[in-house]
Amino acid sequence: MSETSTYTVVGMTCGHCVASVSEEVGAIAGVENVDVDLASGRVTVTSGSPVDEAQVKAAVEEAGYALAPTA
Amino acid sequence: MSETSTYTVVGMTCGHCVASVSEEVGAIAGVENVDVDLASGRVTVTSGSPVDEAQVKAAVEEAGYALAPTA
Repeated sequence: MSETSTYTVVGMTCGHCVASVSEEVGAIAGVENVDVDLASGRVTVTSGSPVDEAQVKAAVEEAGYALAPTA
Repeated sequence: MSETSTYTVVGMTCGHCVASVSEEVGAIAGVENVDVDLASGRVTVTSGSPVDEAQVKAAVEEAGYALAPTA
């Protein structure tokens, strides 16, 4: 069974940005798939077990972007 | 002695775009230096001998961008 979590990333402007975020988030242990939508900034993370949001935040920041503040 | 030519590239939105253009244009035979300004799109090419504009155009397009139409 897989867990799916969705985040919103701000600051991505092009396909290279998408690739950078995908690469960093995809490198988190347990992550099986990362889907990034450039237009909306929506990042969907599929993993075998729940991934700590702090790890996702760190990966996004490592790529050079930021998570949108949660409402 | 070096030749310097300046072009305007449209479509670059971030540092990754700058890096892609620099890499492709820098790979043209004879090119010694490429300076790219993201904000203006200005690309300055320094080479040992004049570089054919068609080669610069092709390199920019290979990177996924376009030369601005000349006035």
